[in-house]
Amino acid sequence: MKAEGPQKFEPEYLLDFTIRVFVHFGIPREQAAIAAKILALSDLRGIDSHGVARLYSYVGLLSEGLINPKPNLKVVRDKKSVATVDGDNGLGLVVGHYANEMAMDKAAQHGSGWIAVCNTNHFGIAGYYSLEALKRDMIGWAMTNTTKLVAPLWGAERMLGTNPISIAFPGYKEPPIVIDLATSAAAFGKIEIARRNQTKVPEGWINDNQGNPSIHPEDMINGGALLPLGSIREMGGHKGYALAAMVDILTAVLSGANWGPFVPPFALRQEIPTKSVGKGIGHFFGAMEIDGFMEVEDFKKRIDEWIAVLRKTKPAEGTEGVLIPGDPEHQQEKIRRKEGIPLNAEVIKDLMEISKQTGVAFHA
Amino acid sequence: MKAEGPQKFEPEYLLDFTIRVFVHFGIPREQAAIAAKILALSDLRGIDSHGVARLYSYVGLLSEGLINPKPNLKVVRDKKSVATVDGDNGLGLVVGHYANEMAMDKAAQHGSGWIAVCNTNHFGIAGYYSLEALKRDMIGWAMTNTTKLVAPLWGAERMLGTNPISIAFPGYKEPPIVIDLATSAAAFGKIEIARRNQTKVPEGWINDNQGNPSIHPEDMINGGALLPLGSIREMGGHKGYALAAMVDILTAVLSGANWGPFVPPFALRQEIPTKSVGKGIGHFFGAMEIDGFMEVEDFKKRIDEWIAVLRKTKPAEGTEGVLIPGDPEHQQEKIRRKEGIPLNAEVIKDLMEISKQTGVAFHA
Repeated sequence: MKAEGPQKFEPEYLLDFTIRVFVHFGIPREQAAIAAKILALSDLRGIDSHGVARLYSYVGLLSEGLINPKPNLKVVRDKKSVATVDGDNGLGLVVGHYANEMAMDKAAQHGSGWIAVCNTNHFGIAGYYSLEALKRDMIGWAMTNTTKLVAPLWGAERMLGTNPISIAFPGYKEPPIVIDLATSAAAFGKIEIARRNQTKVPEGWINDNQGNPSIHPEDMINGGALLPLGSIREMGGHKGYALAAMVDILTAVLSGANWGPFVPPFALRQEIPTKSVGKGIGHFFGAMEIDGFMEVEDFKKRIDEWIAVLRKTKPAEGTEGVLIPGDPEHQQEKIRRKEGIPLNAEVIKDLMEISKQTGVAFHA
Repeated sequence: MKAEGPQKFEPEYLLDFTIRVFVHFGIPREQAAIAAKILALSDLRGIDSHGVARLYSYVGLLSEGLINPKPNLKVVRDKKSVATVDGDNGLGLVVGHYANEMAMDKAAQHGSGWIAVCNTNHFGIAGYYSLEALKRDMIGWAMTNTTKLVAPLWGAERMLGTNPISIAFPGYKEPPIVIDLATSAAAFGKIEIARRNQTKVPEGWINDNQGNPSIHPEDMINGGALLPLGSIREMGGHKGYALAAMVDILTAVLSGANWGPFVPPFALRQEIPTKSVGKGIGHFFGAMEIDGFMEVEDFKKRIDEWIAVLRKTKPAEGTEGVLIPGDPEHQQEKIRRKEGIPLNAEVIKDLMEISKQTGVAFHA
């Protein structure tokens, strides 16, 4: 037996497969292409958890009829630069894309645009949406709430999602600064990996189901919770909790979606909330015309200067020095566009199963 | 010698003293009253570091002619819901107040309003500005950059400020949710206190001047730095750094202010940056009309429900359970409105000195 790394796939091959799968479930081709592109971008940028690895969950919900393949987005309320949109229970990747477009269209007209979205589903990486705005010389914002996994500071149960925040700023010659962060201390995926490998996790990532600090990944599974960014009071855990709360309120309380512990699950076989307080999950998109604040070129050059100065920070001992937000993903994208997308055996197995279920060919 | 607690003062007495001091330096009475009100609110809400304790620094800058007592705010650029404002080197408390008003006026007209401000100075607590928006049934946002104190992840020198973010949401019967957080793991004031008391600080608050973790507060003074929220890579230190970067860019790169290590100092006798890359420091204010997204009453009732549900989170063992962002400040305000503002001997001494310098009476 050879010790092999994960198998690598051409990005275009995975993209094409994903489009066909979505089309199989009745999603119009143009929308399927958008959704597939968002998953592909995630894989290209090295965010493996949010790429084709998630296709299995989307397929599960689509095949059970729990996601509407042909949503009609509806503007529920509108006042110039702001609006609420009902996503008609569409795929979050599709609803998110179109709602984000609306935010940008508003920004073109009113200087900025802000769209709260209800009745939608998980939308992939937040960074996709904020990056879109850069094509139009805008600053892009994106947030979403997600299924509960995180305990608020001093709580002993999951009440909030990992609720990510993204914002992107364009550079002139430099690649963009892309901030895209979950408001939890660690990603759930890291706990899963530790559990699979039977290793411990650092203190500060999870609590057990009594709200006590734990280093045992199985405590997470047994009703424990992720901790917010900052982890404990002394290290600013109240701040991570507050940021998760901010995202939950902007995306869901404000849009009429389900918030906090009532956010519906992302995949089949997950716990269903006892109560509904709105429609679907919630997103929040923002776009601001740079030109409304400053000459676009001046801003981009100032960003380049900011990047250059921060890069020159004296490095901490034993490190490679300071990175710019978005650097790791940008590096990955360069490598993966050339070398392909590595998928592990588990993901390949899922894609094989999807292929079998849908009749869309997939060759590993 | 009696063991005495800090001496307490009537909020109105301190407010009146502060107004007179600002007027002494040529600030018009109406503006002096606004500035004093912001410091008083900080003291009332228990944020002692940002209340009259800061008057001494403001006075230092005013008496050296480093702050313009009669600024003419100028709109540098404007596009419907967004604008850049030049604060004419006024007191941050005054410039901030008026720029925030402009954001709200824009929101009333365009659904939302976003103002980037350059050529300004430190503006007190960010929470004041976001709370103002609630009076007009808006969601309020406020950010500012500040003098460098924080090392980016993997850096060994101070490059960013503690760059706070505030956002406030109104409740129906509940008090508002007020998020107001510095993007560093701990406040600089906590390091100062530990140094004075000759105690150690928890690992994760500061690094020494080589970028190594330190528990010795004097390492901060000797060229060390605060760490961003999350502290180290494993605990999400890159996220706190990214949030500080976001604030720095929105407030200063976008407005034409000084950013990062070039932000001018807050008080006399602090290190002056080697270079200027803009005017003064930067703020960023936002206001969004709730009515543009949802019926105001519906939103407020949903906020009340959110609060009620989060409060009922099962408490972690050994804690009093989950708080709502803004709770501690709200509690302090209730107590202090009744019992007065406690000031320690050092602050009283500063106020006495201000009194001597300005001729404005102050009786401790």
